[in-house]
Amino acid sequence: MRNTALLLSYEGTAYHGWQIQKDEPTVQQTLSEAIKKLTGSWPSPELTGCGRTDAGVHALNYVANFHHDSTVPAERMPYALLPFLPPDISVKAAREVPDDFNARFSCIKKEYCYRIYSAPFPDPFKRDRACFTTYPLDVERMNAAARLVEGRHDFAAFRATGGSAKTSVRTVFSCRVEQEEDQTAVYISADGFLYNMVRIIAGTLLYVSAGKIEPESITDIIEGRQRTSAGITMPPQGLYLRRVWYGEREGLDF
Amino acid sequence: MRNTALLLSYEGTAYHGWQIQKDEPTVQQTLSEAIKKLTGSWPSPELTGCGRTDAGVHALNYVANFHHDSTVPAERMPYALLPFLPPDISVKAAREVPDDFNARFSCIKKEYCYRIYSAPFPDPFKRDRACFTTYPLDVERMNAAARLVEGRHDFAAFRATGGSAKTSVRTVFSCRVEQEEDQTAVYISADGFLYNMVRIIAGTLLYVSAGKIEPESITDIIEGRQRTSAGITMPPQGLYLRRVWYGEREGLDF
Repeated sequence: MRNTALLLSYEGTAYHGWQIQKDEPTVQQTLSEAIKKLTGSWPSPELTGCGRTDAGVHALNYVANFHHDSTVPAERMPYALLPFLPPDISVKAAREVPDDFNARFSCIKKEYCYRIYSAPFPDPFKRDRACFTTYPLDVERMNAAARLVEGRHDFAAFRATGGSAKTSVRTVFSCRVEQEEDQTAVYISADGFLYNMVRIIAGTLLYVSAGKIEPESITDIIEGRQRTSAGITMPPQGLYLRRVWYGEREGLDF
Repeated sequence: MRNTALLLSYEGTAYHGWQIQKDEPTVQQTLSEAIKKLTGSWPSPELTGCGRTDAGVHALNYVANFHHDSTVPAERMPYALLPFLPPDISVKAAREVPDDFNARFSCIKKEYCYRIYSAPFPDPFKRDRACFTTYPLDVERMNAAARLVEGRHDFAAFRATGGSAKTSVRTVFSCRVEQEEDQTAVYISADGFLYNMVRIIAGTLLYVSAGKIEPESITDIIEGRQRTSAGITMPPQGLYLRRVWYGEREGLDF
């Protein structure tokens, strides 16, 4: 049996996240049905995604893999899937991968981005794509706090209930805030993320910007391990999965 | 009676254009109902827009005016209308204008932008916001043709049937093509536009890029006045009304 990895992007507004759910449209279900139509496989192929994303969350580069017996060459799959996919999901590349490659468990690093814009009125063109605030953002203060998020820590304070992870220790490789035209973007990469971790970190940085939390308090918040001492969970529409990394052994060049 | 002008932006995907239609949602209708809720006027105020836009076309800065007796100060109107508007329509500013100001007839200049992106696969985040093509675009060739569109001409070759204008002579002040990151944008300003004129000019520039029309043939196409000699009418989702201008007498600073 072949094992094929797909690189996709999706605009998550219309979906209840990645993971298949009863009675709700999801990206996994939609992509799975497209593959089924292409390969004629029965039952639908079991698609393994690089992680769950919540309802309304977007992905710029998401990786999923599936085992199958189809004869469609990997390099033709993006073109062959195109007619079966809705316009808010796009398969950009496909690669053959080793039999034991697993998009979720083989993943060694992920990067997310959280987008916020500050304006007097909501912008119709940023609806569902970024989080709106009327308050001006202090990028310098946010970056002073963001630096303290980096490193190997127990992130229990930045974890929503409902996740299944056994430990809340994670390594954040990089956390930085950038002003890009009229948007402020929080970039964060780590070896893994807890449930709602990025949205809670973004909410905490927003509190730092507003003066509700001092930048240097981040260390205390991490050490205290109390969810209530961190900021709010930001809404899903500003969140983007930007990139995922795999080990060299997998030979995945995307 | 007061005469108030509103500056708005809208993401046109969900609407059948500006102009009120029977049984179809339009921007004029939606905004008119919001104003009615705010001012309590009966019947709905008659809103005059700076021009018709087609279904799916967007506006970054659209001007509309209406006569009314409400006591809401103009500077408060954008905030006061906010709760009554859907997230794809935003009122950004409001100004008191002279009694005879008419958003359509007082307008002396308009600028549109048409956005095209060239990529191997459609981008979910540009869906409804730009026109997709798999062909690379030749911006230099397009600009050589765009320059010949500028000036006072009879634009009958770039006019779709169905418009109501008596003459097809217009002055194009500027027509230029710019490469902006992964999008190609056609900017065009004129004293007025014929029905589908921008979308036909954009389609003609695309034909020039593809080598189907030579840049220097634009002059012949204009002089021939034949719609069939120009390029295709591009789809609506790449089209944006960017800005409208009024005379100094109107005192409109937006």
